[in-house]
Amino acid sequence: MQSAKYSMTSKTDEFFRKAEQLIAAGRFIDSKGWVPATSGNFSARLSDGNIAITVSGRHKGRLEPDDIMLIDSRGQSLDGKKPSAETLLHTSIYQRFPQVQAVLHPHSVNATLTARLFQHEIVLEDYELLKALPGIATHETRIVVPIFANDQDIPRLAARVEAYMDAHDDVHGYIIAGHGFYTWGASVDDALRHLEALEFLFDIEIRLHGVTRL
Amino acid sequence: MQSAKYSMTSKTDEFFRKAEQLIAAGRFIDSKGWVPATSGNFSARLSDGNIAITVSGRHKGRLEPDDIMLIDSRGQSLDGKKPSAETLLHTSIYQRFPQVQAVLHPHSVNATLTARLFQHEIVLEDYELLKALPGIATHETRIVVPIFANDQDIPRLAARVEAYMDAHDDVHGYIIAGHGFYTWGASVDDALRHLEALEFLFDIEIRLHGVTRL
Amino acid sequence: MQSAKYSMTSKTDEFFRKAEQLIAAGRFIDSKGWVPATSGNFSARLSDGNIAITVSGRHKGRLEPDDIMLIDSRGQSLDGKKPSAETLLHTSIYQRFPQVQAVLHPHSVNATLTARLFQHEIVLEDYELLKALPGIATHETRIVVPIFANDQDIPRLAARVEAYMDAHDDVHGYIIAGHGFYTWGASVDDALRHLEALEFLFDIEIRLHGVTRL
Amino acid sequence: MQSAKYSMTSKTDEFFRKAEQLIAAGRFIDSKGWVPATSGNFSARLSDGNIAITVSGRHKGRLEPDDIMLIDSRGQSLDGKKPSAETLLHTSIYQRFPQVQAVLHPHSVNATLTARLFQHEIVLEDYELLKALPGIATHETRIVVPIFANDQDIPRLAARVEAYMDAHDDVHGYIIAGHGFYTWGASVDDALRHLEALEFLFDIEIRLHGVTRL
Repeated sequence: MQSAKYSMTSKTDEFFRKAEQLIAAGRFIDSKGWVPATSGNFSARLSDGNIAITVSGRHKGRLEPDDIMLIDSRGQSLDGKKPSAETLLHTSIYQRFPQVQAVLHPHSVNATLTARLFQHEIVLEDYELLKALPGIATHETRIVVPIFANDQDIPRLAARVEAYMDAHDDVHGYIIAGHGFYTWGASVDDALRHLEALEFLFDIEIRLHGVTRL
Repeated sequence: MQSAKYSMTSKTDEFFRKAEQLIAAGRFIDSKGWVPATSGNFSARLSDGNIAITVSGRHKGRLEPDDIMLIDSRGQSLDGKKPSAETLLHTSIYQRFPQVQAVLHPHSVNATLTARLFQHEIVLEDYELLKALPGIATHETRIVVPIFANDQDIPRLAARVEAYMDAHDDVHGYIIAGHGFYTWGASVDDALRHLEALEFLFDIEIRLHGVTRL
Repeated sequence: MQSAKYSMTSKTDEFFRKAEQLIAAGRFIDSKGWVPATSGNFSARLSDGNIAITVSGRHKGRLEPDDIMLIDSRGQSLDGKKPSAETLLHTSIYQRFPQVQAVLHPHSVNATLTARLFQHEIVLEDYELLKALPGIATHETRIVVPIFANDQDIPRLAARVEAYMDAHDDVHGYIIAGHGFYTWGASVDDALRHLEALEFLFDIEIRLHGVTRL
Repeated sequence: MQSAKYSMTSKTDEFFRKAEQLIAAGRFIDSKGWVPATSGNFSARLSDGNIAITVSGRHKGRLEPDDIMLIDSRGQSLDGKKPSAETLLHTSIYQRFPQVQAVLHPHSVNATLTARLFQHEIVLEDYELLKALPGIATHETRIVVPIFANDQDIPRLAARVEAYMDAHDDVHGYIIAGHGFYTWGASVDDALRHLEALEFLFDIEIRLHGVTRL
C-alpha cells in the first residue's frame, strides 16, 4: 500500500514510542469494553508537529505497530496509509490546544447512553474524581460535557465542535450521540486518566438517572 | 471415536489455521461471559467447501484443537466426531451466502433478555456502530434483528429462519429466544466484529428499555 | 498444625489432581466475582470415598495446594487441618448422590439478590441453558431452585436441606439466603458447568424481575 | 527529587515486602474498576511504626516499587517524596487501632452511589459475608458504615471522622461522599478482604434500593 512518494518519510524512535503508548492504551480501553468491534480511534502528537494515529478499521484492543500511521498537522497521510475518517476531530484539538499531545476517542455503552438520557449536555459536579481533570483542585466544581448530534459529514461536525469550543472555556471532552466521546491530555497517560474519570462519572450519572426518574 | 472410514480425510493446514482462529475467538467471547457453561458454537468454512466446527458439548472459552471437527457442506461428520445439534443452522447460512466464511453463535445474557423484552424483532437505528456491519456507511440506518421462538427440532427451526431470510434482505444476525444469537461474516474476524457490535447494541437497547418503561 | 496422629494418611496422586482442579475452578469463579473475600468452598470426592475440600478461611481465587485438605466421608479431618464450617453440607450431598464427585459453593451477588427478591424458591423455565444441567434435553423444562434461610447451626440447616431433598426430585442446586448457593456434578468440570448455568439464569431472572415489577 | 537530608533513611526489606503487597493489592483492586484514573491510596505500617504509603498521583493498578514511599507515624515524608493529600486519614487510623497494619482507600462506583442513595449511613445486616469482618461470627449482625461529606480540608475531615469513631464502636470502614471509602485490617490481606466484602454488600444494597423504590 505504501507508494514511493512516501518513502522519504522515515518514522522516528519517538513515533514508535508513542505508537507503543497508543497500543497499550488500546489494550486497557478494550479490556473495559469501551472500543467494541473496530470503533474508536487514538492519536499522539510528535515533537515535530506530525501526529501518530490509528489506521482506519483496526480493532483498538489488538493494535500492532503497523496499525499506527503518520499524518501531518493538517491530517494528510505521510505514509500512504488511510487514517480514520474522523482525523479532522483530532487535528482540530491539537490546533486549538498547544499543550495537548494525545487525543483518545472511546465508544462506550456509557457514552452512548449518556447521549440518549441527557439531551445537549451532561453536568458533572461534586465528585472528587473531577480532580483527575487538569486545573481542577476541588470536588466543588461544575463541569459541562457537551453532546453533539452524530454526523457523517466530519467537517460539518468539526465546525460545530469548534463553534462550541470558541464559546466555552474548560472543555475536557465532548460526546457525539450514538458514537462515543473525545477527550485529550498533555500525554497519552493524561488523556487516559481523563478518559477513565469521565467514563466513571458517566456511569454514575446514568445509574442515578434511572433511580431519580423513579 | 474416530473410525477407519474417516481415516482418509486428512486435515489441512488451512483447517488448523481456522481452528486456531475459532479457539481465539472463543477465548475472547468467553472472557465477556457470552458463552457460559458449554453453550454456543462456532464454525469457519474452508476453501474446499468443508467446514471446521466446534464439537458438541465443549466449553467454548477453553477450546483445544481437538475440540474443532470437520464436516462437509451438508453437515456430515468427516472425522467421526459429533458436531453440534445446531449444525444445520451453520450450513444453511453458508449455503445462502457464498461470501460468508464464518458463523458464530454466542449465548449471552443480553441476547436472552432481548428476546424476552422485545417480541418478534429488535430494531437498531441511529448508532455509529451499525457501520461495523457490512454494507452500512452511516448511522442513519435502520436494521431489524428477527427473534425466533426456540425449538429443539432444528430442521423446523432452520426452515423458519430460511423462510424469513427468503423474505428479507440485509439480515445481519438473528436471535433464538432463550438461546442466544447467530451472526456471520467473510472471516472469523469479521463475524467477531459483527458479534461485538450486536452485543453492544442489544446492551444499550435493554438498558434504554428499562428506562423508557418508567 | 499437622499432628503426629495424621502422619499415616498419605495424600495420593488422585488427591493432588483433584486439588488442582479445585484450584483452577476457584480462579475461574473468582474472576467472575462469585467468591468475594474468603467466601465459598469447594470439594471433590476421591475414589476411596475420602474428600478433598478447601481449608476454612482461604481466598478461593488464590488457592494453593496447601489450601486443599483431606476429610473422610463423615467430614472428619484426615490431615489435621480445619475444614470449612459447612463441610456437612458437602458430605450430605455425596452421601445422597453416589454419582456426584464434586460440590461447589459460590457466594455471588446474583444468588444473594435472588434470595431477597424471590422468597422460598426461584423457578427457571424455557431456557436453552437448562440443558447444561444433567438429564435435561429441552428448554421446555421447569426446574425449581429452593431457597433456605441462613443458619449458623449447620446441622440444623443440613437437616432442612435433607428434608427438602427427600421430598423433591431433580434438585440441581439450592440457595442459602444471604449466603450464596450450592451445586454439584459428576466431576469438577460438570459442577462448574452447572454453576455457570445457574449464575446465568439467576442473572436474567433478577433483571427481568426489575423490569416486570415496573 | 530525593534530597540529601533523607539519605540516612534506608528502606528495609520489610518496607519492600509491604510495598509488594500494596502493589499486588492495587492490581487486584484496579482489575475490579475500583481505583479509576489515579484515585485511591493504600498504606501498610512497618514494625518500627513508620508507614509505607502510595505516592500522590500514581495509577493504583500500575504501581511500581518507586510509587511507594516512606512516612513516619505523623505523616512526615522520610524519603523526600510527596505522600497523598489524605495521608492524615491513614495515620489517624493507625493511631487509633494498634492492631491495624494496613489501610486501603478505593474509589468505586458503588461507594459513590451508596453515598448518593443513602444519606448519612448505610446499614448492613443479615449477610453471611459480614463474617469477613473482624469479630463477627454470625450473619445476624447489624453494622453501620457512616458516610461523611467530602471536604478538601483534610484535617477538618479527619476531625469529623475521629469524632464519629470516638462515639461509635465496631466501625469497619467509612464512606466519603463522592470520594470512595476507607477500610483497614491487621494485614494487607485482611484489609483487602474487608474491602471486597464491603464492595459486595454496597453492590447488593444499591441494587435492592432500585428495586424497593419501585
